[in-house]
Amino acid sequence: MPPAPITRELAEFVAASRWRDIPPAVRREGIRGLINHVGCALGGCGDEAMALAIRVLAPIFGAPQAGIIGRTERCDPLNAAFLNAVSANVLEYDDTHLPTVMHPAAPVAPGLFALAETRGASGEELLHAFILGVEVSCRVGNGLMPHHYRRGAHITATCGIFGAAAAAGKLLGLDPVRMNWALGHAATQSAGLVESLGSMSKSIGVGNSAKNGLIGALFAEAGFTAAESAIEGKYGFAAVASDTVDLNKMTAGLGDKWEILANAYKPYPCGVVLFPVIDACLELRKRIAVPVGEITAVVVRGHPLLRERTDRPEANDGRIAKVSLQHSIAIALLQGAAGIAQFTDAAVADPTVKALRARVTAEDDASIPVEAAVVEVIIADGSSLSEHVAAGRGTPGRPMSDIELDAKISECAAFGAPFVDVPALIAALRDIESLGDAAHIMRMTVPA
Amino acid sequence: MPPAPITRELAEFVAASRWRDIPPAVRREGIRGLINHVGCALGGCGDEAMALAIRVLAPIFGAPQAGIIGRTERCDPLNAAFLNAVSANVLEYDDTHLPTVMHPAAPVAPGLFALAETRGASGEELLHAFILGVEVSCRVGNGLMPHHYRRGAHITATCGIFGAAAAAGKLLGLDPVRMNWALGHAATQSAGLVESLGSMSKSIGVGNSAKNGLIGALFAEAGFTAAESAIEGKYGFAAVASDTVDLNKMTAGLGDKWEILANAYKPYPCGVVLFPVIDACLELRKRIAVPVGEITAVVVRGHPLLRERTDRPEANDGRIAKVSLQHSIAIALLQGAAGIAQFTDAAVADPTVKALRARVTAEDDASIPVEAAVVEVIIADGSSLSEHVAAGRGTPGRPMSDIELDAKISECAAFGAPFVDVPALIAALRDIESLGDAAHIMRMTVPA
Repeated sequence: MPPAPITRELAEFVAASRWRDIPPAVRREGIRGLINHVGCALGGCGDEAMALAIRVLAPIFGAPQAGIIGRTERCDPLNAAFLNAVSANVLEYDDTHLPTVMHPAAPVAPGLFALAETRGASGEELLHAFILGVEVSCRVGNGLMPHHYRRGAHITATCGIFGAAAAAGKLLGLDPVRMNWALGHAATQSAGLVESLGSMSKSIGVGNSAKNGLIGALFAEAGFTAAESAIEGKYGFAAVASDTVDLNKMTAGLGDKWEILANAYKPYPCGVVLFPVIDACLELRKRIAVPVGEITAVVVRGHPLLRERTDRPEANDGRIAKVSLQHSIAIALLQGAAGIAQFTDAAVADPTVKALRARVTAEDDASIPVEAAVVEVIIADGSSLSEHVAAGRGTPGRPMSDIELDAKISECAAFGAPFVDVPALIAALRDIESLGDAAHIMRMTVPA
Repeated sequence: MPPAPITRELAEFVAASRWRDIPPAVRREGIRGLINHVGCALGGCGDEAMALAIRVLAPIFGAPQAGIIGRTERCDPLNAAFLNAVSANVLEYDDTHLPTVMHPAAPVAPGLFALAETRGASGEELLHAFILGVEVSCRVGNGLMPHHYRRGAHITATCGIFGAAAAAGKLLGLDPVRMNWALGHAATQSAGLVESLGSMSKSIGVGNSAKNGLIGALFAEAGFTAAESAIEGKYGFAAVASDTVDLNKMTAGLGDKWEILANAYKPYPCGVVLFPVIDACLELRKRIAVPVGEITAVVVRGHPLLRERTDRPEANDGRIAKVSLQHSIAIALLQGAAGIAQFTDAAVADPTVKALRARVTAEDDASIPVEAAVVEVIIADGSSLSEHVAAGRGTPGRPMSDIELDAKISECAAFGAPFVDVPALIAALRDIESLGDAAHIMRMTVPA
């Protein structure tokens, strides 16, 4: 029996979707996803990787038709999509689809804003396309996990491109046949390696997923044909991408079950397993009656995955610090915060942070769930304090509230684009459904 | 034991290579490869896929710094690399690295011509970089076969990008560290599906391999870092790309054994297994004393792979005709040729060709090697003629001569770019080692 025509079914779903088919909770999560996305891009827009990428690309920019969040440069829509995806993801602060650990917004949203600037789109149209794009990325990912990532595919890039193509195709109004081609062009361009994480090269994969997804939709619109069975075909994407393919997961419950509802926003720009640990340290800091310098030891108990992924007493730079248990504890206890500023190279080199990192030890406890942790602080006088967090902020049991999300965006903007009127930007995004011209959002993010 | 640092070894080899290290036979094959490449691009430059791609990309072209072979448009070097790779490959007439069945030139050469136009390069420098790029592409492919292709990876695109990055990096004079990063950026962008073959989408994969390889080199030049072990790392390219990885094949004998010597040029724009069949038909046509209309049957005997890959009595368009035994036999017998014009949609629709296709049958004979075939023609009067070809033109036992290659280029130019002074172009390419400005070649291919 040949496999079900998954690529075509996804294409037909996206092409046929109407705004009134999108439930209110899904719309609300879409808005939160866009707020988080734009905020992360404001935070990352001045990153070294962005500066280098722009230095390389500026001499070959096309006509200045689209903006770069938080920056004055303007360029063609493809380079804009690339650069805005890079800035949204570069700080590791963007959204996380919990079942796949994919970051869906960075590949999907930038092409939509670029199209809004060049072709025009209302806020409602952009939000609708964003929700559908996230849906497609996550569903393709669901069907390939766990082997896809475990083998070395950087799922944000490899599956994000499908959502980028679908979302752009929706804004372009592609019919089902052309939408199918757009997904086919996404499939044949899907790329990205886990090995690249920890180097700037990761950003090329994420940027390409946004750019090449948009290219796929534009080529399809022009009549450029693709394999109809690009995902499920014998020599198609699924066969290449995973040994544990479950094609049914890509389409089961389409339109009833929405993946964006499993999308979470990070309270801290670091590994998700560190969230309960940081929450515990921020609470402990309030309770400790002595200077932090008098802490002689910190003992963390957590799920074995915590130690496996983050036991790094020697963090050498900001990138590695984002997956260091020791660094995360040290900055939370010393500075009472765990924001972008706490994961810079400068924060890592601080001698007091270094000294406290050396006093942290971790213990495995398989009875503790991965979203929980227990942190014990031992003081010089022999006393100790302990804090148990059952569900870290930003985990499914304790999602970020709108107020927390707004505060995060303010932090991001203060770090990367302090000239932005954050309250006005958040208000515009929260009311995006009534915005006649979605490109207005982009204009609000750039210096006057 | 950790794997050998393959990525670094390849990078060091390319960075350290000097022109005097390249043996004369390798230089000669490099020149033949460039001649074949430019010729194929002249043939393909007017293809529908090219016209559509340019229609999509022209509005976002960067400043006109680089040319498109056979066309008047000029654009930025990245889009030029993309488009010239598309045109060089779109007719399925380009070179074939026989051990991997990869087409190495289309990904590697276009970035070099684009750099020659924007940064400057001598003919010798360009030829040197081309030879090294082909070397890297083919070696990476050797280490992943046979599983890589069998699973569904379009090896021309997926491995071609490594050669494109290495070659561009060589022209840019990257040091070994930056060359390593360029290969890392190639690894994380490697993409392309066999499922896409037969649709225009194939061209996006091939075009991207040229464009994204060049991007990788430019980013590396600017200091954009990548994973050092992007190929051999635990979550690197080789682990993702194949279950039959032999990393040693990627570096064994570097500088002694040259892969370009295993590169072949097609005498006909169709599947390589069809070459001996067409040769036999062209010979038979000379010997048949009656009109071809009096042929009542054609019987082909060949290796089972011939029938498996090409038994297609119903060819519906030019693309499928390129892998149709029946069509190839019909046009060779009827028209005494098997060039680009014989594999167009119009040629496929010709009623006399259709009628003869229906009279062809194929028989398996495992004792016949894949580069050989026996064709028997049965005439209305009951007589028959038979022709045995031991090694088809363009197979290892009977490589294309320089004269045959020149004739092929003339055919390509006549089809796609009849204004080109072919003898002057071939003379310039054959003498490219003494050309001060390699961009001169590009100028010779475009309308005045």
